[in-house]
Amino acid sequence: MELKEALQQLALLQKKMYAYNTATSALYLDSVTVAPADTAEGRGVAMGILAGEQQKLLANPEVGALLDALDARKEELEETVRRQVEELQRSYRQLSRIPADEYMEYAILTNEASDVWHKAKETSDFELFRPVLEKLVAFNRKFAVYYDDSRKPYDALLNEYERGTDMEYLDQFFGVIRERLVPLIHAIKEAPQIDDSFLHRHYPAEAQRRFSDYLMEVMGLDRRHCTIGETEHPFTLEFNNKDVRITTNYKEDNVADSMYSVIHEGGHAKYELGVRDDLQYTCLSSGVSMGVHESQSRFYENIIGRSRPFVETIFPKMQEFFPEQLGDVTAEQMYLAVNRVEPSLIRTEADELTYSLHVLIRYEIEKQLIGGTLEVKDVPEVWNRLYREYLGVEVPDDKHGCLQDSHWSGGAFGYFPSYALGSAYGAQMLKNMEQEIDVWGTVALGDLSAVSGWLKEKVHQYGSMMEPADVVKHACGAFDPTVYTDYLTKKYSEIYGLSGK
Amino acid sequence: MELKEALQQLALLQKKMYAYNTATSALYLDSVTVAPADTAEGRGVAMGILAGEQQKLLANPEVGALLDALDARKEELEETVRRQVEELQRSYRQLSRIPADEYMEYAILTNEASDVWHKAKETSDFELFRPVLEKLVAFNRKFAVYYDDSRKPYDALLNEYERGTDMEYLDQFFGVIRERLVPLIHAIKEAPQIDDSFLHRHYPAEAQRRFSDYLMEVMGLDRRHCTIGETEHPFTLEFNNKDVRITTNYKEDNVADSMYSVIHEGGHAKYELGVRDDLQYTCLSSGVSMGVHESQSRFYENIIGRSRPFVETIFPKMQEFFPEQLGDVTAEQMYLAVNRVEPSLIRTEADELTYSLHVLIRYEIEKQLIGGTLEVKDVPEVWNRLYREYLGVEVPDDKHGCLQDSHWSGGAFGYFPSYALGSAYGAQMLKNMEQEIDVWGTVALGDLSAVSGWLKEKVHQYGSMMEPADVVKHACGAFDPTVYTDYLTKKYSEIYGLSGK
Repeated sequence: MELKEALQQLALLQKKMYAYNTATSALYLDSVTVAPADTAEGRGVAMGILAGEQQKLLANPEVGALLDALDARKEELEETVRRQVEELQRSYRQLSRIPADEYMEYAILTNEASDVWHKAKETSDFELFRPVLEKLVAFNRKFAVYYDDSRKPYDALLNEYERGTDMEYLDQFFGVIRERLVPLIHAIKEAPQIDDSFLHRHYPAEAQRRFSDYLMEVMGLDRRHCTIGETEHPFTLEFNNKDVRITTNYKEDNVADSMYSVIHEGGHAKYELGVRDDLQYTCLSSGVSMGVHESQSRFYENIIGRSRPFVETIFPKMQEFFPEQLGDVTAEQMYLAVNRVEPSLIRTEADELTYSLHVLIRYEIEKQLIGGTLEVKDVPEVWNRLYREYLGVEVPDDKHGCLQDSHWSGGAFGYFPSYALGSAYGAQMLKNMEQEIDVWGTVALGDLSAVSGWLKEKVHQYGSMMEPADVVKHACGAFDPTVYTDYLTKKYSEIYGLSGK
Repeated sequence: MELKEALQQLALLQKKMYAYNTATSALYLDSVTVAPADTAEGRGVAMGILAGEQQKLLANPEVGALLDALDARKEELEETVRRQVEELQRSYRQLSRIPADEYMEYAILTNEASDVWHKAKETSDFELFRPVLEKLVAFNRKFAVYYDDSRKPYDALLNEYERGTDMEYLDQFFGVIRERLVPLIHAIKEAPQIDDSFLHRHYPAEAQRRFSDYLMEVMGLDRRHCTIGETEHPFTLEFNNKDVRITTNYKEDNVADSMYSVIHEGGHAKYELGVRDDLQYTCLSSGVSMGVHESQSRFYENIIGRSRPFVETIFPKMQEFFPEQLGDVTAEQMYLAVNRVEPSLIRTEADELTYSLHVLIRYEIEKQLIGGTLEVKDVPEVWNRLYREYLGVEVPDDKHGCLQDSHWSGGAFGYFPSYALGSAYGAQMLKNMEQEIDVWGTVALGDLSAVSGWLKEKVHQYGSMMEPADVVKHACGAFDPTVYTDYLTKKYSEIYGLSGK
C-alpha cells in the first residue's frame, strides 16, 4: 500500500472512532441530564450495538496490518502520526491479547455487577456484593497478565490507568502522604473547629445557576464552546476541543457543593478546550490520563478556588447573588469555611486535606487484593480499620464504607491512585508556575488568564501527544510528593493556627 | 441459508438501523436544545461518518440478497416480518436506483442549499436562491423517474412522502378546500374581529413551563417516557415507544404559541408512545407517514385543543397559572381568542382555518415546477398572486413569501400536501369517533383517555404495519374532504356569527 493511502486510512479509522465516541457520549449525556426516567431499555439496545461496532473498528486484523505497515515506516511519519500509530498499536494489542470469550464474559459480569453493587449499597449488604467482587478481582488478576506479563499484576493494572506508575512509585508517594498528613489531620482534630454554618443556609437553585454562570466566566470558559447541565453526579464530557460540557448538581442547603463542582469540572473543561486543533478527530485529542486530568480539575478547585486571593476577589460578587444568605459574612469567614477540615466517611465529600487519605486506603486494599494477600471477604474489616487509623472515624456500615464507590463494580482496579496523584502534580505545577508568573497577584484581581495560559502551554495543548509521565515532568519537574504535603501543611497549619510545618 | 438464520440477520440489521437512528437523533436533539452555539463543525464530522455507515448498512448487495431470499419464502413469514421485508425492499431498491455519484452530488447540493437559503431568506434575496432552487428542481425531476418511472414525476415524489396519494387525489382534495374555504375566509374578513389582546400580555417563561407540565398531564403523557425541552422550532423526536421527546419555545408575549405547540407535539408523541411493543427496533416502529402523523398532532391541537369543551375545562387551571394576566378574562373569551381567524403571510403562524390555503398555494406551485410548466424565476410572482387571491393578503417581500419555508432547500418537493391532508383526516376521525364514544362529554370533564384510547386502537398501535392509505381507511373510512370543510364551516360560522353553512 502507498504511504499516502495508508495515512488516509489511518485518519479515517480515527474519525470513525471519534464518530462512535461522539454518538455514545451524546447518548450518555442525554441519559444523565434530560432523558425521561424510564428509558434505559431502549437506550441499552442502541448502546450495545454501537459498542459492538466500535470494538469491531479496532479489533480487526486489517487494522493491525495497517498499523504494522505504518510502524515499519516510522521514520517517514510526522511526529503526530507516529504517536497515533503508537497509541493505536497499544490499544490494538491489548484488545487482541484478551481472548474474545473472556472479554465477553467480563462485559456481562461488569454489567451485572453494577446492578448488584447498587442493590448491595442501598441495603448496606456486603455479602450480596462479595461473590461478584471475587469474580471481578479474579478477572483483573488474569487480565493483568494479558496486559503485561513482565510486571506484577497490580503494576500492570496501574499502568493501564496512569501509564508509567507502579507500586514502587506509589508506595513512595503514599508513604509521604501517610507520614506527613496523618499527624497533621490528627492535630487539626484537636484544634478549634471553623464555623461553616452559613454555607448551609437556603440557597435557591435558580440563584446558584446564575452564580455558576459567573464562575464559568471568571474561569474564562467560552460559553459558545462549553455549556453547563444538571445531573446527579457531576462530570465533564468532551466531544472535541470546541465542544465540552460540564455538569453540576444544586443542593439548596449547601452553596459550596455546586460552587466547587463547577470549578472542578471547569478545570477538566479547560484542559479539553485547550488541546491543539491538529489533534482533533484523532486518538490524541483528549487529556492524556486520569491523573493529569485530575491535576487540572483539582488545581482549579483547590489550589486556586480555595485560595484566599480567589475567595476574596469573588466574594463581593457572591454576596450580590446571595445577599440575604451572605450579608453578615466576611470574605475571610468564607475562606475559612470552604477550607474546613473534617475527617469523614465519604471520599467524594472529603475536604482538600483528607482527600488523599481516602485514596490511600483504597490503594492499600487494592494492592493486597490484586496481589493475592487479602481476601475479598476481609475487605470490610480492613477498610474500617484503616479509616479508624488514618482518619480517626468509625465506619457505621458498609454503605458508608467499602460499598460507597462504583469503581470496583465497573472492574476498575488501579484507578483510584490517580485522584491523589493529580492533587500532588497540581501542587508541583503551582510551585513552577510561581517561578514564572505572578499567580497570586493576577488571581487577586479575578484574572485567571495568566494561570490558564501557563497550564495551556505546559499541559493542555498537548492532548495525548506526550506520555503522562512526560507531561508531568514537563509541567512539574521531577516528582516530589513533599511539595504537595508541604503545600498542605503550610496552608492548613495557618488556617487552624498550628505551629509551623 | 436457513430461515432461522435469515430472520436473525433481518432482526440484527434493523437493530443496527435503530442504533444509528438513535445516535444521530441524540446528536440532533442535543444540537438544537442544549449544545453550545459554536459546535457545528465537530458534530458535522461525526454526523457525516455516521450517515455514511448508516447508508452502508442497507446499500449492500448482501442485504439485497437476504431480503430477496426472505421475500421468496413470504408465505412462511409472520405478518410483521413480511411487512418488514416489504418495507426494507422498497428502501433498498430506492437506494440502489439512484446512481451513487448523483446521490453524492445531491447530498452536497442540499447541504449547500440550506446555507444559501438561510442567507437569501435573511436578506429577502430570491435571486441568490434561484440558481440553487433550479438545480434542486432539476434533480427532483430526475430522481422522480428513478423512484417510479411509471408515474408522472410529481406523482412519484408525492408517493415518497405520502404513499398512495397522487395529483388526482390531491386535486380533488384541494379543489374542495379552495371552493369551500376561500369564500368563508373572505366572509370572515368582513365580520367583526375577535379581541385576543389578552393573549399578548406578559407571560413569564417560568410560569409557562409549569403550564406545559399541566398540559402534558391532561394529555396523559407519561413523564417517565416523555420529557419536554426547549428549542427554536418545536418538534417531536422518538427514540422508541418508551422514549419520546417533545420541544417547545416560550414567547413571553404570546401564551397561546407555546400552549398549542405543546399540544401539537404532544399529539405526535401520543402516536409514537402508542405503537405496539413487538414493532420496536424494527423499521415498523414509528408513525407510518407525515400525513397520518399530522392527523394526530393537529387533532389534539385544533380539534380537541381549540374546542369549546377543552378550553372551558382547562381555563380555571390556566387562570391559576396566570392569575394577573387572565383574572379579567372568561373561558368563552379565551375560546374565541384561540380561534381568531386572520389571513396572514406565514404558514407556521396560520390559524386552523387558513392553514390549508397556505398549503394549497405550495401544492399548486410545486405541481407546476416539477411538471415543467412553471419556471423557478416566476415563483415569487405566482406565490404573491395566489396569496392575494386565496387569502387576500399582499406579500411585501420574498422573506415573507416564497423564501419562508426550509423544505425546498432540503430538497423536499411533495412534502407540503401532507400537512393539509392530516388536518382533513383528523376531521374524519372525529366524525367516526363521535359515533363510538362520548367525545365531548369526556373532554368537557378534562378526561382525554377515551379520545386517546380510540386513536391508539385505530391508528397508534399499528406503527408502520399498515400502508398510510389503509390506516386512513381504517380510522376515517373513505376519504371525503367535505367532512373537513363542513367541520371548519360549522365551527367558524358560529364563532364569527355568519349565517349557517
